[in-house]
Amino acid sequence: MSLIESQAPRSALIVLSGGMDSTTLLALALHRGVKVRALSVDYGQRHVTELSAAADVAHHYKTPLQRVRLPDAAALHAGSALTTPDIPVPDGHYAAESMRATVVPNRNMILLALAIGHAMSQGLEAVAYGAHAGDHAIYPDCRPEFADTMARAASLATDNAVALWTPFLHASKADIARLGAELHVPYSLTYSCYKGARLHCGTCGTCTERREAFSLAGLDDPTWYRAACSS
Amino acid sequence: MSLIESQAPRSALIVLSGGMDSTTLLALALHRGVKVRALSVDYGQRHVTELSAAADVAHHYKTPLQRVRLPDAAALHAGSALTTPDIPVPDGHYAAESMRATVVPNRNMILLALAIGHAMSQGLEAVAYGAHAGDHAIYPDCRPEFADTMARAASLATDNAVALWTPFLHASKADIARLGAELHVPYSLTYSCYKGARLHCGTCGTCTERREAFSLAGLDDPTWYRAACSS
Repeated sequence: MSLIESQAPRSALIVLSGGMDSTTLLALALHRGVKVRALSVDYGQRHVTELSAAADVAHHYKTPLQRVRLPDAAALHAGSALTTPDIPVPDGHYAAESMRATVVPNRNMILLALAIGHAMSQGLEAVAYGAHAGDHAIYPDCRPEFADTMARAASLATDNAVALWTPFLHASKADIARLGAELHVPYSLTYSCYKGARLHCGTCGTCTERREAFSLAGLDDPTWYRAACSS
Repeated sequence: MSLIESQAPRSALIVLSGGMDSTTLLALALHRGVKVRALSVDYGQRHVTELSAAADVAHHYKTPLQRVRLPDAAALHAGSALTTPDIPVPDGHYAAESMRATVVPNRNMILLALAIGHAMSQGLEAVAYGAHAGDHAIYPDCRPEFADTMARAASLATDNAVALWTPFLHASKADIARLGAELHVPYSLTYSCYKGARLHCGTCGTCTERREAFSLAGLDDPTWYRAACSS
């Protein structure tokens, strides 16, 4: 499929969250023969479970993983449900206004800035980043114009040493799931739920999107959802 | 002077390193009636003394200061003299090729990304950032094109909520020192030396630039330099 055919760099640092998108991106990079390392950022996210998923995924793919902690992120991002335990994570679809509570201000620029610095110091020629078309509505830092501008900033900041590789920018999450199935991605290792329990809740924005992606792609969903278990 | 007359935002988060530039920027912001907060980043810099200078400066100006730690920055930035104790900080002028050892890959994008996120969560309309014309030669992330691109990225990532304010972008460090003298900036509280001892060394790139700035501006330099003390 076209995602597999897209131009790939020779080496890349993958921003690995442990979710479906970044894990599929890692699989795609390895499939294309890209020399890869991975970076995970602990920004005080409620769903810190995703970081152990990232470690499991990196282990599965025998990919070196650097973890970076941002212990003051809660003070930095006061008011986001993703970093503040007292603010509930809303249920429902990503497009819903209520999902604004899950915006972590400028999160993706912070992740990219750290990754570009690490790629530069590791001599890797790109940062690979799994932003995709489904995230755009309420997360401004997932939109294509943002990715394009950050690609330009990366080139300027590194004297053209580090580029941005974003092959999923115009893909849907169902496209990503389909690609992942072709590449035999072990989705049971991945984790997406914003509520952060060991079992996916099945009802928050990311769980809703995850379920839809498998369903739209016509694939079996290997995820255990609490909502399904209790119903 | 023109720097004082330049357009200022109503509120801003100052990226405060504790050096001359960011301290003068804080003084300028307060002089212009900007509502300010400050952010310091501990990225494992050898010259962590600058963070206590930042605290002294914030205290002097009664400005709330948020400190953010990046405890894994040494792993992130392997190979920079500023974060790796075993790599010596070179003496000499900023323009020298040897000063490349002091480049921390993508440092300014990381600082700006953190600051833009914090400004957004604090409801401040700008990030104020003291990059100036003198830094450009070997630090790609101090050049005007980089600042312009980051300003665009900030607008995109925050839906135009946060702008970048960089009034020193085309000023020299001597211009900044002259402005600071007008604004009675307590330069004795500020700290610039890359070697990180309590006394400025007087010979590294930042000390050389600091001495030149006071000299070119025709001002008394209140700094105690070790080189001067021992000669």
